[in-house]
Amino acid sequence: MDVHEFSTEWKRGFYEAIARRRDMRAFEPDPIPDATLARILQAANQAASVGFSQPWNFLLVRDPARRKALHAHVTAERLKGAERFEGERREKYLSLKLEGILEAPLNVCITCDRERFGPAVLGRNTIIDADLYSVVGAVQNFWLAARVEGVGVGWVSILRQEWLAEFLGLPDNVVPVAYLCVGYVKSFPEQPTLQTRGWLPKLPLAELVYEDRWGSKPPAAMIDELGLSSVLDGIE
Amino acid sequence: MDVHEFSTEWKRGFYEAIARRRDMRAFEPDPIPDATLARILQAANQAASVGFSQPWNFLLVRDPARRKALHAHVTAERLKGAERFEGERREKYLSLKLEGILEAPLNVCITCDRERFGPAVLGRNTIIDADLYSVVGAVQNFWLAARVEGVGVGWVSILRQEWLAEFLGLPDNVVPVAYLCVGYVKSFPEQPTLQTRGWLPKLPLAELVYEDRWGSKPPAAMIDELGLSSVLDGIE
Repeated sequence: MDVHEFSTEWKRGFYEAIARRRDMRAFEPDPIPDATLARILQAANQAASVGFSQPWNFLLVRDPARRKALHAHVTAERLKGAERFEGERREKYLSLKLEGILEAPLNVCITCDRERFGPAVLGRNTIIDADLYSVVGAVQNFWLAARVEGVGVGWVSILRQEWLAEFLGLPDNVVPVAYLCVGYVKSFPEQPTLQTRGWLPKLPLAELVYEDRWGSKPPAAMIDELGLSSVLDGIE
Repeated sequence: MDVHEFSTEWKRGFYEAIARRRDMRAFEPDPIPDATLARILQAANQAASVGFSQPWNFLLVRDPARRKALHAHVTAERLKGAERFEGERREKYLSLKLEGILEAPLNVCITCDRERFGPAVLGRNTIIDADLYSVVGAVQNFWLAARVEGVGVGWVSILRQEWLAEFLGLPDNVVPVAYLCVGYVKSFPEQPTLQTRGWLPKLPLAELVYEDRWGSKPPAAMIDELGLSSVLDGIE
């Protein structure tokens, strides 16, 4: 079967996932059924990859003792991170909840095997990090699929990659790309938390689009289209 | 409104997008309506970003003369890339169509502003490339949304990033992350082309999942779930 443009209902489901995905930091303890988790992982495994190299692996981190050690590492890194901000901004930073490592019933580390299928990967001769980018595509698929299943995901980026690699026993050719807290949530907020809390504003799309060269604006008709408040308004 | 788990129809639409997205190299010349392109870009602008930094911009490259110059660059890089393979493998590489820069009605470069909102970004103190990863999330959203709209996307990774940055007039703090060919297609193939053409096999998910540590397999019940042939079979 070959489907081109999706039906209104299918489009709706897709765009709702895009619009409702959130970076979550608070979780309910209920376990995620294996079948649900498998669907989410299947979505990740269907991401694009440079030269079809599929360089990802998925480590399901469940052991509470191990997660406690990881939590201690992240707590220390969070305090170090605070030193980069000053005054009110630092207070706000420290007031934000930045992970849910122990609360979430599951953590998932998504890694990149930098030598999968050997050193010569089609399309990686010019952009050496294209394999890492492929893994991030898998992360995004995972995150969206989780949302569709009603499962929250939070990407914890306040940790040292070398520390994590050692902690998870990764071989030399494998690097961690994303460390995710995964679990059911009380509710998904209407807006990203960092937006609601006034950390940074949401950037309007029309200001982010150029034509042919940096700084050159697209025609007015296109700018008008970009100004639509929500993509869900525009579905025909 | 707060929706947790999506309805069957919405889930279906989402998972169909995940399953049917392809890396396309052949395009029809028909232009993409502004409203359609705006929806795709809105989806990209709703990706997650480290510390809500939204470091992306979207350059719509339409000018045929400029695209000709870019095409010449990619053609040269493609021949250089062939030198990394030998014998039959090189012949196969050279037989593959690796871009559609001139055929597609639109090219889109998605960039990363490495200094948006200043040098201190929440969550970027430990993982310095987290901003690039955020941009890749936007690329994945773009790609999936395009598929939903019946629009094909091909990520061209055989080009030099510094060359492209200069070509597009990017400021020093902005780097190109993805260069995409975008347009309607005759059909989306059932499987990824590099799989069909025998470049590399599809990896079974069950072989890619570990528990707690690298190399440690999850319980048998989980492995069984991972073995489902298609995620679409598993939707309830």
